[in-house]
Amino acid sequence: MALIVQKYGGSSVSNPDRIKNVAARIVETKKEGNEVIAVVSALGKTTDELIALTKEITENASEREMDALLSTGEQISSALLTMAIHSLGEKAISLTGSQVGIYTDSAHRKARILDISSDKLKEELGKGNIIIVAGFQGIDENGNITTLGRGGSDTTAVALASAMKADVCEIYTDVDGVFAADPRVVKGAEKIDRVSYDEMLELASLGAKVLQLRAVEFGKKYGVKIHVRSSFVKDEGTLITEEIGDMEDPVVVGVTSDTDEAKITIVEVIDKPGIASKVFGALAESNVNVDVIVQNVSEQGKTDISFTLKRDELARADEVIKNVVGGVGSSGIKCDDEIAKVSIVGVGMKSHPGVAALMFKTLADAGINIEMISTSEIKISCIIERKHAKKAVQVLHEVFKPGKNKVLKNEKNS
Amino acid sequence: MALIVQKYGGSSVSNPDRIKNVAARIVETKKEGNEVIAVVSALGKTTDELIALTKEITENASEREMDALLSTGEQISSALLTMAIHSLGEKAISLTGSQVGIYTDSAHRKARILDISSDKLKEELGKGNIIIVAGFQGIDENGNITTLGRGGSDTTAVALASAMKADVCEIYTDVDGVFAADPRVVKGAEKIDRVSYDEMLELASLGAKVLQLRAVEFGKKYGVKIHVRSSFVKDEGTLITEEIGDMEDPVVVGVTSDTDEAKITIVEVIDKPGIASKVFGALAESNVNVDVIVQNVSEQGKTDISFTLKRDELARADEVIKNVVGGVGSSGIKCDDEIAKVSIVGVGMKSHPGVAALMFKTLADAGINIEMISTSEIKISCIIERKHAKKAVQVLHEVFKPGKNKVLKNEKNS
Repeated sequence: MALIVQKYGGSSVSNPDRIKNVAARIVETKKEGNEVIAVVSALGKTTDELIALTKEITENASEREMDALLSTGEQISSALLTMAIHSLGEKAISLTGSQVGIYTDSAHRKARILDISSDKLKEELGKGNIIIVAGFQGIDENGNITTLGRGGSDTTAVALASAMKADVCEIYTDVDGVFAADPRVVKGAEKIDRVSYDEMLELASLGAKVLQLRAVEFGKKYGVKIHVRSSFVKDEGTLITEEIGDMEDPVVVGVTSDTDEAKITIVEVIDKPGIASKVFGALAESNVNVDVIVQNVSEQGKTDISFTLKRDELARADEVIKNVVGGVGSSGIKCDDEIAKVSIVGVGMKSHPGVAALMFKTLADAGINIEMISTSEIKISCIIERKHAKKAVQVLHEVFKPGKNKVLKNEKNS
Repeated sequence: MALIVQKYGGSSVSNPDRIKNVAARIVETKKEGNEVIAVVSALGKTTDELIALTKEITENASEREMDALLSTGEQISSALLTMAIHSLGEKAISLTGSQVGIYTDSAHRKARILDISSDKLKEELGKGNIIIVAGFQGIDENGNITTLGRGGSDTTAVALASAMKADVCEIYTDVDGVFAADPRVVKGAEKIDRVSYDEMLELASLGAKVLQLRAVEFGKKYGVKIHVRSSFVKDEGTLITEEIGDMEDPVVVGVTSDTDEAKITIVEVIDKPGIASKVFGALAESNVNVDVIVQNVSEQGKTDISFTLKRDELARADEVIKNVVGGVGSSGIKCDDEIAKVSIVGVGMKSHPGVAALMFKTLADAGINIEMISTSEIKISCIIERKHAKKAVQVLHEVFKPGKNKVLKNEKNS
């Protein structure tokens, strides 16, 4: 008998009919001979409605009270889903984060799970119950209700799967899985059948719509097999697991683009130790999140430092940098908010030389100039002009055929 | 420094503006130098909306899950009210029934409070916090969420006041207090300034709109001073306390009428031991609630038994009685659904002879025939034709001048 943890998002339970559908799916899983723990988010727009209500009361709601308030959304959906399961003739019980014993730190609205008690869960499974857990919530050591932040129900599910040593954690969503490229940009972009935790983390922009990255980190840390799949069809979705050295693995699993970034270049900085820390220390203090950083080789004791950041933080960063520019001996700052970042991701590229070269050649052949390059072991990112972003993704997809295909391997064979 | 427990009903917090008003009232009480614990009901129609939602899922919702669901209403209002207090610059914290430690039995949807832990409340008061407690809810020994039934927030407030030895439990409502007669029936009916627990219990039909009778029972048992007052004006309302032998007390505190009853008479029953238990045992088994019971003196070994009951249970009771009529040797059943019960209530009547006689004379003078009479130490009820109910209340009010006045005393003096 397998133990399956399932997670259903807010859109899967946005009205009574959908709640009944989810109930049917859970009961089916149970009837296939499994034990089931299902984690559920708040109904559709409940959380947004509650937040709107607080705005009528105060603009400065205490985070503790926000958590007490928002956690009710999942308590409501878990009780309703449990009732729907009862009406299908199966035993079930709803549990809040507090009732399960999901212990978190006290960082209200973005709490981290510290520990999960398995006693109550085991007791209720032992009674033959399907357990419906209110997602997104826990309690701190003083019994205060905490929430894990947006998308926290994914983390609840993966953490429960870990604590209960579940066979798999199924994340149900309204798409079929994670795709190798944005289907709106690339026609025929394929669903990824299997992806490693690290690849999934690097595919952030593709995965963000279906799965909280924090849940992937959690899954990686505790080795929880995560299955992202559709709540509307029965097909297998995308399996996120440990990297396994399978020769059949595709070299590149996904192509992504990020068009929300901007670039800042600090020109002709004196090239001496401590300069970078001065610049990025000042940015960090101002809570500016920096993404790609590139420093060119030094010429005559001067160097250029370029970095990318969220476009809506550009003005703030510009301000901060202006204040340090003198101190680092720069001759000026250049801002560019017309960039995009395109990336290819794949564990396979570690053992396949020439992937980077093929990426650069592909972009060049398409007439796309590369402004910055940044590489990690499993990801290569190029900063290009934003107007070329769509085309870049398309040509990279065409060449690397990410997802199911094994491009470079086939090429070698041909 | 006094400790005041306050309770605000759903209509007092039905929208953000009202929540802010309640917050202001609480802050004012605090600033007058008191410690404050406020119990709050769910916002306006939240509970009804949640119940409607379950009906779309199932007609047979589990009571445990209903409690998990419904308790969110008070959790929401307590968090919002706490935020509103914060925005007025006062320290405050919301607590659920579980967080306070309100322990109940496991009778979901109508749980009884077994114990209240004062530790958490004392700790938070010690930190200078106003405490906002989610009413209507508790937990049982297994950590299941329970609710106390409709109006349960009154009981929560009185129970908290008892556990914390509060100086007073203020029940805020949308009327000025308890009235000596229904103001819709009697023009100029006065608010009762003070009433004993027992009188309040007998005045059920007048008090039901402002206060859960179970809370009065609880108050009586533990000697909690209850003050029913308006959340819209600052005037004193009605104080419910121990009976104190004050000569200035009115003899009659209130006049009530109940027009929802019907009467059944079992004619010519054999007058021998065990007959009444046969009849009323059968009714109890069928869950028929009997109110007034009168058995006339026996004539020639036969007697008539009459009783009143809720009108909508008349058909069921008639059915039940038909099955026992043969066994008790009755010659027939007479049903009458055109009756009303008028009552006068007052601890004072115990020490004032002639109150009953004056009531009967008053009704007779008004041309109203009395069909049944039932008396207790502090209440006299007469069953009359329903069409006379309004007039009966008016003439009784005129003669006894209940509420503040001291009729019989004045009469003696005059």
